[in-house]
Amino acid sequence: MQQRRVTGLPLVLLTNDDGIFAPGISALRQRMEQVEGTEVWSVAPDRERSASGHAITMYRPLFPIPVEIPGAKSPCYSVTGTPADSAKLAIEALLPRRPDLVISGINKGANLGTDLFYSGTVAAALEGPILGIPAIAISLNSFTSTDYSVAADFAVQLAKKVLAEGLPKGTLLNVNVPPLPRDQIKGVRITRMGERLYKDQWDRRVDPRGRTYYWLAGQLMEIDNPEDSDVVATEQGYISVTPVQLDLTRHDQLERLRGWDFEP
Amino acid sequence: MQQRRVTGLPLVLLTNDDGIFAPGISALRQRMEQVEGTEVWSVAPDRERSASGHAITMYRPLFPIPVEIPGAKSPCYSVTGTPADSAKLAIEALLPRRPDLVISGINKGANLGTDLFYSGTVAAALEGPILGIPAIAISLNSFTSTDYSVAADFAVQLAKKVLAEGLPKGTLLNVNVPPLPRDQIKGVRITRMGERLYKDQWDRRVDPRGRTYYWLAGQLMEIDNPEDSDVVATEQGYISVTPVQLDLTRHDQLERLRGWDFEP
Repeated sequence: MQQRRVTGLPLVLLTNDDGIFAPGISALRQRMEQVEGTEVWSVAPDRERSASGHAITMYRPLFPIPVEIPGAKSPCYSVTGTPADSAKLAIEALLPRRPDLVISGINKGANLGTDLFYSGTVAAALEGPILGIPAIAISLNSFTSTDYSVAADFAVQLAKKVLAEGLPKGTLLNVNVPPLPRDQIKGVRITRMGERLYKDQWDRRVDPRGRTYYWLAGQLMEIDNPEDSDVVATEQGYISVTPVQLDLTRHDQLERLRGWDFEP
Repeated sequence: MQQRRVTGLPLVLLTNDDGIFAPGISALRQRMEQVEGTEVWSVAPDRERSASGHAITMYRPLFPIPVEIPGAKSPCYSVTGTPADSAKLAIEALLPRRPDLVISGINKGANLGTDLFYSGTVAAALEGPILGIPAIAISLNSFTSTDYSVAADFAVQLAKKVLAEGLPKGTLLNVNVPPLPRDQIKGVRITRMGERLYKDQWDRRVDPRGRTYYWLAGQLMEIDNPEDSDVVATEQGYISVTPVQLDLTRHDQLERLRGWDFEP
C-alpha cells in the first residue's frame, strides 16, 4: 500500500451507499467543510447501492467521474461501482494522499445488529481499517426523515475525537442516530452489536409467464436484545456508538475445536 | 422465522459463489450424497458471483430454477441473485424444511484472512448462523487445480462432526485446503483469521474515448502473520479451520470509548 501522506492537513474521505447525490452525504460534507484545518473529499457510488454488503468489482473497470454538486466546496466524485469499490479506489488511487479518516454516511435508514453484514455503508467504512485507516459509519434510523442535522453534528464531533485520539488498528465506529429533534436525544451510549431477525421474508408471486418468483420483504421481529446493544439504545432515544473489529475469529471456540479428531 | 423441521433426516444445504454448475459444488454434492441418512439440496447462483461480499437483492425479484446436473441424485436449483440471496432463499422458502447444516463451497481459490469480507462463499455460509443454523465454508486454495477430492472428503468429515456435536449459536467454520496431493497434507490446524493486503491494487487505463478508468488488480503482499493464522497454516501445508463469529463488536474498546465525552 502506497503511503501518500507526508505532510498537509488531515484529509477526510466521505463515502456512502446511497449515492454521491444523496442528501445524507451532502449534510455530512456541509458540516465537515466547516471544520477548520481539514480537507474533505467525497467519493461515492453513482447511484443508490443499498444492501451491497462488501461486494467489490473484479470483472469490469470502474470510472470515477468528477461531479458538480450545488453548494459543495470540496472535490466530489461518482464511481460506477459498489460502496466498497468507491472507498477502496478513493483511498488507493484518487485522493491526493492517504486519508486520515473515512466517514461513510449519513445513511438513510438504520445499520444495527446483524444487518451490519448487508450494509454497504459499513462495508465502505471498513475499507478504512482494512487499509489501516480509522473509520466511522453513521446512519439516521429513518427512511422518511430528511433532517440530517443532528447526525451531521455528531459525526463532526466524533470525527474530531477520532482524529485527536486515534482508534486501535482494525477498528471502525458504527453510529446510529434516532430520528428525533435535538432536544429529545437522550445522550450517547457505547454499545455492542445486537441481533436483528425478520419474519415473512419472501413474497412468493407468479410472473406473467407463469413462473414463480420471490421478492425479499420481511418485517422486523421483536427480539430480546441486551440493554447495552445498539438496537435497544437507539430504541430508547440514544445515539449508539459500536466499536466494530476486523477480526472475525471466534476465539472462545479455538480450544474446543482443537479437541476434535481429524484424519487429514 | 418458520421452523419447518419436525422430523426427518438431517438436511444439508449446499451453496457457493462460483455458480450451481461449478465443479467445486459438484464434488461436494457427490460426496455428501453418499453419506447415509442425510438429505442434500443444492441452491446456488446461476453464474459465478465471486467477490459478492454479503450483497443481497432488494429491488428486483429472484427466480429459483430447478436445474438438471449430470450425475446429481439430489435437487439442484439455480437462483438469479447473489450467494447470500441463494442461501437465504433456500433456507427460508425453497427447502422442504429447515436445514440442519449449510455448506458453502468448495470455492475455487482461497478465502483467508481479511479477504473473508469480500467472499461470497463465506457470506452464503453466514446466512446459516444468521438464521440459527450451523455452517461450514470451504475453499480449495488454487485457481488452477481441478482436484477437489481432498477438500470434499474433509468437508464430509467435518459435516459429520458438526451434525453430531453442534456449533455454538452464531458460529461458522471457515476451511481452507491447500492444493496438495492427499499424502502431502500435513494435518488439520485450528486457526485464527490472519491478514491479507495487496499492493499495486489498481490498473489505471484510458478508454477508446479518452476517459480514465481503473481496474482492480493487485498482488498479495508478504506480511508477517501469526503461526496460528489461517494464512500461515495453509502455506505450511495444513488444512485450516477458523471458527468465525457473527458478533463484530470490539469488546476490548467499550470501556475506553465510554471514557470519551460527548455532547448530544
